Amino acid sequence: MTHPKLHPDRALPADPATRAAAREIHAATRDLPLLCLHGHVEASLLADDAPFGDPAELFVTPDHYLTRMLVSQGVAMEALGIAGRDPAALPAETDPRAIWRTFCEHWHLFRGTPTRFWLEYELVEVLGVTGTPSRKTADALYDEIAARLAEPAFRPRALFERFGIEVLATTDSALSTLADHARIRADGWRGEVVPTFRPDSLLHPGRTGWPAEIAALAGLTGVDTGSYDGFLAALRARRRAFAEAGALATDHGHATAASERLPAAEAARIYAEALAGGADPAAAGAFAGHMLHVMAEMSRDDGLVMQIHPGVLRDHDPGVLAAYGPDRGFDIPAGAEFTRALRPLLASFGRDPGLRLIVYTTDETTYSRELAPLAGVYPALRLGAPWWFLDSPDGLRRYREAVTDSAGFYNTTGFVDDTRAFLSIPARHDLARRADAGHLARLVAEHRLTLAEAVETAVDLAYDLPRRAFGISSPGA
Amino acid sequence: MTHPKLHPDRALPADPATRAAAREIHAATRDLPLLCLHGHVEASLLADDAPFGDPAELFVTPDHYLTRMLVSQGVAMEALGIAGRDPAALPAETDPRAIWRTFCEHWHLFRGTPTRFWLEYELVEVLGVTGTPSRKTADALYDEIAARLAEPAFRPRALFERFGIEVLATTDSALSTLADHARIRADGWRGEVVPTFRPDSLLHPGRTGWPAEIAALAGLTGVDTGSYDGFLAALRARRRAFAEAGALATDHGHATAASERLPAAEAARIYAEALAGGADPAAAGAFAGHMLHVMAEMSRDDGLVMQIHPGVLRDHDPGVLAAYGPDRGFDIPAGAEFTRALRPLLASFGRDPGLRLIVYTTDETTYSRELAPLAGVYPALRLGAPWWFLDSPDGLRRYREAVTDSAGFYNTTGFVDDTRAFLSIPARHDLARRADAGHLARLVAEHRLTLAEAVETAVDLAYDLPRRAFGISSPGA
Amino acid sequence: MTHPKLHPDRALPADPATRAAAREIHAATRDLPLLCLHGHVEASLLADDAPFGDPAELFVTPDHYLTRMLVSQGVAMEALGIAGRDPAALPAETDPRAIWRTFCEHWHLFRGTPTRFWLEYELVEVLGVTGTPSRKTADALYDEIAARLAEPAFRPRALFERFGIEVLATTDSALSTLADHARIRADGWRGEVVPTFRPDSLLHPGRTGWPAEIAALAGLTGVDTGSYDGFLAALRARRRAFAEAGALATDHGHATAASERLPAAEAARIYAEALAGGADPAAAGAFAGHMLHVMAEMSRDDGLVMQIHPGVLRDHDPGVLAAYGPDRGFDIPAGAEFTRALRPLLASFGRDPGLRLIVYTTDETTYSRELAPLAGVYPALRLGAPWWFLDSPDGLRRYREAVTDSAGFYNTTGFVDDTRAFLSIPARHDLARRADAGHLARLVAEHRLTLAEAVETAVDLAYDLPRRAFGISSPGA
Repeated sequence: MTHPKLHPDRALPADPATRAAAREIHAATRDLPLLCLHGHVEASLLADDAPFGDPAELFVTPDHYLTRMLVSQGVAMEALGIAGRDPAALPAETDPRAIWRTFCEHWHLFRGTPTRFWLEYELVEVLGVTGTPSRKTADALYDEIAARLAEPAFRPRALFERFGIEVLATTDSALSTLADHARIRADGWRGEVVPTFRPDSLLHPGRTGWPAEIAALAGLTGVDTGSYDGFLAALRARRRAFAEAGALATDHGHATAASERLPAAEAARIYAEALAGGADPAAAGAFAGHMLHVMAEMSRDDGLVMQIHPGVLRDHDPGVLAAYGPDRGFDIPAGAEFTRALRPLLASFGRDPGLRLIVYTTDETTYSRELAPLAGVYPALRLGAPWWFLDSPDGLRRYREAVTDSAGFYNTTGFVDDTRAFLSIPARHDLARRADAGHLARLVAEHRLTLAEAVETAVDLAYDLPRRAFGISSPGA
Repeated sequence: MTHPKLHPDRALPADPATRAAAREIHAATRDLPLLCLHGHVEASLLADDAPFGDPAELFVTPDHYLTRMLVSQGVAMEALGIAGRDPAALPAETDPRAIWRTFCEHWHLFRGTPTRFWLEYELVEVLGVTGTPSRKTADALYDEIAARLAEPAFRPRALFERFGIEVLATTDSALSTLADHARIRADGWRGEVVPTFRPDSLLHPGRTGWPAEIAALAGLTGVDTGSYDGFLAALRARRRAFAEAGALATDHGHATAASERLPAAEAARIYAEALAGGADPAAAGAFAGHMLHVMAEMSRDDGLVMQIHPGVLRDHDPGVLAAYGPDRGFDIPAGAEFTRALRPLLASFGRDPGLRLIVYTTDETTYSRELAPLAGVYPALRLGAPWWFLDSPDGLRRYREAVTDSAGFYNTTGFVDDTRAFLSIPARHDLARRADAGHLARLVAEHRLTLAEAVETAVDLAYDLPRRAFGISSPGA
Repeated sequence: MTHPKLHPDRALPADPATRAAAREIHAATRDLPLLCLHGHVEASLLADDAPFGDPAELFVTPDHYLTRMLVSQGVAMEALGIAGRDPAALPAETDPRAIWRTFCEHWHLFRGTPTRFWLEYELVEVLGVTGTPSRKTADALYDEIAARLAEPAFRPRALFERFGIEVLATTDSALSTLADHARIRADGWRGEVVPTFRPDSLLHPGRTGWPAEIAALAGLTGVDTGSYDGFLAALRARRRAFAEAGALATDHGHATAASERLPAAEAARIYAEALAGGADPAAAGAFAGHMLHVMAEMSRDDGLVMQIHPGVLRDHDPGVLAAYGPDRGFDIPAGAEFTRALRPLLASFGRDPGLRLIVYTTDETTYSRELAPLAGVYPALRLGAPWWFLDSPDGLRRYREAVTDSAGFYNTTGFVDDTRAFLSIPARHDLARRADAGHLARLVAEHRLTLAEAVETAVDLAYDLPRRAFGISSPGA
């Protein structure tokens, strides 16, 4: 069998002169290693290195990009293998072939979406299977995929190596023991997998379960978290543990980018009140903003790169949360604001050479208005890649068009993937490299950049800038 | 005389490969029937089927798109035939030829606007007249148009049939007797004209004249509206009457999309206070938001599709309202918010198979940030076509570029025209089909979609999706 | 030596048919005179007509577009010749050659930015020097530029004439004596240089130093500013003085576009309180909004065109302000709102033939949502050119794409440059003419406009509309 291929010019601009330049630029980045410095793949996947499950388990049930689209057209969660708590609902489908068939029958829904782009890559380039998903092809495709997944060459570590992943960062609760990371390091496999410190659950006293998290923090660190100072000491201890396990960065998923620092006594008072069982929502919110400021200070001190992902309202439908749990596609962006919100943090550390801050957004209006002007002057700040709903062919293009005027290319991080779907990682890098090639090619075609400059910039965006943004020393250094 | 023609490639992308694909895609939709499921043409127009008036009355005086542009360049309302209440102002021009001349002299103002695109279509394709409007051509054009309008082939019903309109929905006050619709049905004409239920004036206790509207509601339904429960019963009665007259949908023009449900007792209390002559603005606003939620519930129960058009500040200049009345071009959009505002409504009915909710906006920032993510997961929600100021070649393009990533094509309604200018209806569908063909052609040229898929999608956008969104059973069903 | 040349098609669209039209359109505007009706060049530059200083002083140290980009990548202000007040910092570099070298070494940072576009124009087209800035070329370039600057043909007045500047408006404190303008007029040079009235420091009682400004206003006018009425009289006197010195316009840099008029007694009360040393921030803000309304009234009365530039948060980093002063690149846009904010002002004067109001924004979201709909109906309002962070190839394109639907071309001012870098003036006009040619060419290529119309519109945008917007009578009149 000949290996099927996607069109070599996919996602490149149509204009012939622009496409010719884009091809040349893309050729320079196509085979570069992948830097996967922010993501949601579990370390256990690579620690276990077990074969992937069936096609439904691999592609459908856990992927909220896919399931949300099917749900939007009336497909029941249960039909996708997602069990709910509503006893009146149908039982969840357990036949993976039936789940896969439901997905294939709805393939047309993904026309024009990035999900379609990624899935085609995964099927054709990663798995080497042929045929377009449809009711008619579903069973044959299922069998073909299942056969591939049974081969040793399609186990996680083999794919990791085939993908050319240089570093893979996972995202881990601040309370994680990082045992899976230790297993990977212990067994001699040469793949670089590092944790990322995500302390959200510890920084929001307003959320249910917060006191239990604080207690667990004490248990894990052996530090008494009964006081605010103890809390800070325990956080520092966890950050140290992450750094020792190879972590490069922290990640913060706050509702807003508010970063106003409170007087220490005020922070301590709110902390104590919250632990005692009651801080009002305004105080809890102020504390979370304060802690973002404190996290920046700790990053400045310990060198962990700080990432902020604000502005998404999680679990928009409380009924879905109650019945099916989180991460079911019901997280919805809301308007974001950075100019005023980040001002306190940047006034403290924005020109401090010790801090590296990376900001992501799902609100495109902030690109040209706030984020590019901020990243274009504060040395601590870098603008992260288009995030979540914006990580698409057109979203990547609009990002470069909007941010380059004020931030240039070199105040962005280059591409940062952000996925829990391991097989989609090379697809996402492929798309980003094509989108950047297309953007740079337009600048060349409009005589705003030379082709040599464009090629050099593309390589920087794909490889050097992510390394620099996350503080990885260059290979030769 | 040979029939004059517009350029067959108008509004299609310039790149040759993209244009070739766009032509092929557009050819598949060009001659499909028109679904006009939301608009402001009066039913009396088709009930009377009288000849249209003179060119000024047809094209200029009532069209706020046109008059606002002329006013913006210093032309007096009066010169356009709009009489004001200011006794110091000039009397309104009554010579239609003079009004038409004023319009023709300002033709250059419309360069690059959708109004120009529509008018060219109306003149050339609908009326078959030649020549570009100008001071020099004004009189000849006037005569040519006037001659056409006198022919039987240019009466409303004849045009309705020539346009290929399959259904035309009007927009009607909830207090309308729907007598004109009854006349159309009664006289045996086969054209399908249905009303749309618009209860805005009943749902905003803060607006002057509200108590009179409530009294009229009681008079029309015979239901005592002295209590909140009676009010709800009367609303249900009117919805029933609309549904019996063929209505497919309701339409709601609130200032915001706020949809927080109040406890029934609280709603009843505000209703009673407002009837008694005084509800404070905050309470009146809360009541309007509450009623949006109640309207969704009633839609779930009676099957009328619910449309929301929020975010336009009506009558921005109070002096214009006082002197010339509403709908003079002084309605201005303001920032809109949906993620938080629609949450209560969607939490109640967003996954209820009984509800179909269509949302429109004049705030493009909400496309990728809020509306596409919402429409891409809630099965009840569909994203309406670009509305009002955004129903333009570039506006239609930006819409598809911004919403497709997260909502795909199939969570949009396809094209929905929204005009009071009957002759512009085919022009608007023509433009939308061209814009969608151009967008799909780009996806084909970038190897993101096959041509066959693009053609099928274009047909769905032009024909099948509007039918499905408004619950019209498919022809073969 | 042959004069080096930039590519003649730079910044024109790549599609061949579109580019051909763009070339033809651009040819019609390329050699038109420059109208520089808003800027920050100092009148003293042209009054003195001294040779420009060295390359660092001319291009680097005072240009916050340049310095902010270098600072964002960790270059110290001091290395750019900017002395700070921190005694622990390095002393500022005083060797202009070293400063120039630092800039040249960082040339790659400007890829894709408008700064790069302008600088290339300044180097090649204005100064006629060759070579791309780099560590290697820095010294040779320095010598070449320095040699040019020593020639009489490169003095300010000679360049003014070579650039084809028809009028240059400076921006001047309301307290300026306008002595430099008087010197220019007095010495018989034929260049037209006019002041612009900028009273911001007088209208914000909340800012430190306000009482001193008010005292200076009294001193300069001889009008007692102890009362609100005296204050208004003194403002009128200054406006008169500016008008007599040739001023065409005023300029207002408020934090927001709020324009609510206060009752006179309330305004007088706040004024008195503020003079006495204390007005709370809310009252001070309300007073500033009130004064915007009053300024509109004075413009209506004296014919000075009113410009508003709202929405930029100045001196985002207080540490930079304290150490290095204002205008160091740390001004950051924030979200803007016009629909509600401008309503009071427009309700009073929006249809008054005496007022001309020009609005600028750094928030692109307001283009299609608020500003184009407002400018498309209020005769007093014109939409200014893309401002500051948006004055770029892609920013100019997005502006036309977003505003033309509702405002057309003729409710915009055409191009208005806004720079303190004298040599960049022709570069900015060149870019704007290319961007408009590209936009118009697309309309031609999409059969939405004839080529003749596009050419005429381009000339209007480059020449006639700025003249009309600022009330300059046409040459033949």
